[in-house]
Amino acid sequence: MAEDRTITIDDVARLAGVSRATVGRVVGNYGSVSEKSKERVWEAVKQLDYQPNLIARGLRSQSTKTIAVVIGSIRNTYSTALVYAVEKEAQKKGYNVLICTTHEDIEKEIKHLKDLNSKKVDGVILMSAYRADGSMDEKYREFYIGKLPIVFVDRNIPGINRDVIQSENFDASYKATQYLLNMGHKKIGIIATSNFSTVQERIKGYRAALTDAKVEFDESLIASVDELSDKMSRKVCHAFLEQHPDVTALYILNNSLCSGVLLDLKERQIKIPQDVSLLVWDDEEYNELLDLTTIEQPITEIGKQATRRLFELIGEPEETADYECKKLKPELIIRKSCTAPNQSK
Amino acid sequence: MAEDRTITIDDVARLAGVSRATVGRVVGNYGSVSEKSKERVWEAVKQLDYQPNLIARGLRSQSTKTIAVVIGSIRNTYSTALVYAVEKEAQKKGYNVLICTTHEDIEKEIKHLKDLNSKKVDGVILMSAYRADGSMDEKYREFYIGKLPIVFVDRNIPGINRDVIQSENFDASYKATQYLLNMGHKKIGIIATSNFSTVQERIKGYRAALTDAKVEFDESLIASVDELSDKMSRKVCHAFLEQHPDVTALYILNNSLCSGVLLDLKERQIKIPQDVSLLVWDDEEYNELLDLTTIEQPITEIGKQATRRLFELIGEPEETADYECKKLKPELIIRKSCTAPNQSK
Repeated sequence: MAEDRTITIDDVARLAGVSRATVGRVVGNYGSVSEKSKERVWEAVKQLDYQPNLIARGLRSQSTKTIAVVIGSIRNTYSTALVYAVEKEAQKKGYNVLICTTHEDIEKEIKHLKDLNSKKVDGVILMSAYRADGSMDEKYREFYIGKLPIVFVDRNIPGINRDVIQSENFDASYKATQYLLNMGHKKIGIIATSNFSTVQERIKGYRAALTDAKVEFDESLIASVDELSDKMSRKVCHAFLEQHPDVTALYILNNSLCSGVLLDLKERQIKIPQDVSLLVWDDEEYNELLDLTTIEQPITEIGKQATRRLFELIGEPEETADYECKKLKPELIIRKSCTAPNQSK
Repeated sequence: MAEDRTITIDDVARLAGVSRATVGRVVGNYGSVSEKSKERVWEAVKQLDYQPNLIARGLRSQSTKTIAVVIGSIRNTYSTALVYAVEKEAQKKGYNVLICTTHEDIEKEIKHLKDLNSKKVDGVILMSAYRADGSMDEKYREFYIGKLPIVFVDRNIPGINRDVIQSENFDASYKATQYLLNMGHKKIGIIATSNFSTVQERIKGYRAALTDAKVEFDESLIASVDELSDKMSRKVCHAFLEQHPDVTALYILNNSLCSGVLLDLKERQIKIPQDVSLLVWDDEEYNELLDLTTIEQPITEIGKQATRRLFELIGEPEETADYECKKLKPELIIRKSCTAPNQSK
């Protein structure tokens, strides 16, 4: 069977001279169809070498009772907490959850979607690898706007009309920056993978808070890490602090970058919060242990709402309107990693 | 389409009066088959309402180019590192990897296998939720011994003849315990989920080291946590230390239990290693930061070898012999969390 086979249910319907729905009923073995139509459909199936399993999508009775959740990595607290919440919700409806990882590579994401589109699942919860600064080839858009129900979480893709459930990134980031500014920090370094849409919103929130506090925005204080790994963030943090030894606070926009930063600070014997204040997005198991002040996203709620919305869409596959973007509120958990800046700096 | 449909390729072959392979060729649309046989096969398919997609397994040309990795949880370093290694290896062959989680529930595992068996993947890498003290219903064994290629990692199921790739749990645990004994520890508490086969081997290694050092084995020093969560391990550790304030070292057999233990020690203001030495299985990102002495399993190598073995099996689906159990060697990474016991205890 060719991978990119293009025979569709419509081809079968056309050749058999019946409706698309009738083909669905015959091949899916449900509902009532006349013997004559059945004959015609199977004849057309045979002639076209049509693979009936490809029509699973859109036909409720052909449900695979499976949804997919597509995430960047499973080595990331946000993603794993999201999957956990989705699984919990899906289980209530007796659905299996497949987890697909993109390693933050849009090409891999599209490969997954292509695959999921054609045969495997009833719907997708998607934490897209799309980068706000990258342009996606137009031809790939079809995989996001087809009949397969999709709910975006966290990040969205401009111009794709699908439901999005995410955090109030701008507001939460504004508030966190204000918290540091009110302590007296003026040189606040950012460590982030800056090209995700969410992170860009967080940077906008940071920038707006600086502006409102009349602190000059300095682009060079934003250190960008290409990869969500502690090895890479340790390296970037190291170079950043060499160049900017005068920062009094570090604001980390992705939890996956935190352990690398902590390892670099440890190596330099920089004390938190005495020498540098630290504020981190997303609560890790270890954040409590290390007393890190954290912006905690309502990930469980995001996963729950995304799954519920997906089930609504699965129930009404024809629905094309009423896409909405829902923003939930993160919480600033104040621990002990932030204090007034060291005056000697 | 009924979920538990039992019409098989053999039924079709029998009715059509052709071989299983011929049915495969017709429905899978590959190879050469006479027009007459084709006719017969499609007639039988129609009569039996046979769903051709169910024959994907075993037929190489029907490959979905997808393998599954079944793990307990994605909130566990061992599992995520395993999946990462499997994905890396699978990618070289152009395969997608689906991740299925069991939440350490054997019923969920069987549901996944049932599903994967019937239609979705070319092979499975399985970190089984089977508990050494639980008995699995005989009727479920079929899902482990069918035609679907399976490679077990980490844990195995007695009586199931499948490849197993795992660590030398006994030896590594013996060595780690010996390391603590040589420092002078005699009261070494264990925190573990004791009913996995791997953990039982680790406990045997611990026990053997005690015996060889002529230190009495005390069953009550094994604290068992039912669930791989930090909330639960914190609670169990708390109760355990109330009962055994005289332990001088804690030996944690699953990384997922570690943060809970650390939180309890922090709450009690117990210092590591001054008050209690700590030795942990599996290296977390944070273990280096917290200077924890760790037994590091060769997870990447386990994942790599399991995937390679699976691809061998996919290439030869008829093979039934030569199953083997491979044991790889973990490494003891000595950091600063262990020291001679506090004499005041």
